[in-house]
Amino acid sequence: MARHHRRQTAPLRWEGVDVRAYKAEGRAPFRDVSRQVLFADPALASELRCFEVAPGGHTTLERHEHAHAVVVAHGRGRCLVGDRVFAVAPFDLIEVPPLAWHQFRADDDAPLGFLCMVNAARDRPQLPDAEAIAQLCADPAIAAFIRA
Amino acid sequence: MARHHRRQTAPLRWEGVDVRAYKAEGRAPFRDVSRQVLFADPALASELRCFEVAPGGHTTLERHEHAHAVVVAHGRGRCLVGDRVFAVAPFDLIEVPPLAWHQFRADDDAPLGFLCMVNAARDRPQLPDAEAIAQLCADPAIAAFIRA
Repeated sequence: MARHHRRQTAPLRWEGVDVRAYKAEGRAPFRDVSRQVLFADPALASELRCFEVAPGGHTTLERHEHAHAVVVAHGRGRCLVGDRVFAVAPFDLIEVPPLAWHQFRADDDAPLGFLCMVNAARDRPQLPDAEAIAQLCADPAIAAFIRA
Repeated sequence: MARHHRRQTAPLRWEGVDVRAYKAEGRAPFRDVSRQVLFADPALASELRCFEVAPGGHTTLERHEHAHAVVVAHGRGRCLVGDRVFAVAPFDLIEVPPLAWHQFRADDDAPLGFLCMVNAARDRPQLPDAEAIAQLCADPAIAAFIRA
């Protein structure tokens, strides 16, 4: 049976798609992020999720063996991917390669919503230890950007 | 290395992403469709493509064992999935299950752009034979909709 979800309300909410906690509270540092799983099906090798970051919020600074394929859906923000920090806007494409440190932040005055394709079978995210943080902070632009 | 493509122009074009022929001419019936592969990488189990259907255009009526996960990105149109025809608008979600006949059409006065997630390893599309067309046309709404 075809599944069809009409978008319900701005910015990005769908009927019949639950809004879930982004991560377990206290297990990883993040702020003002919600997550919706748009597609997860045994017939699909990947999942498509939607992350919504409220103004001033940020995802967890992390890395993992699996890659992310991101399409910005609405709002404004910046992201760290590997050794680069850059501004992102709707319909920008961002590929996060395996083991690249990454973090998404919404601007202070705008939300940031993005779609993220990820392999259904994937490893767990790794958080940075003190040494990894020190290495990242060797770049002043990254030091000013990250929230960990 | 992070890959970042800034969207270039309306409606949906990205720098550095080639616009490809939708299908080989003469091999399958379609009209006014272009295709861009946004993400295809050995680290990703799926590909993410963007299809752009010009006003009045349509994709090929087809089915296959693999599933599609579709997010409408802009414009207006209608689609057949299985035994249903319905209108679609930006950020609608549509899952096309295995072996469901499907076709997307842009409205006559608007384009239709959509993102489509698909397994990297997948079977080839099947076109309907006369018997399949007759079965689909048993429903007057489907008979009026399809282009084959």
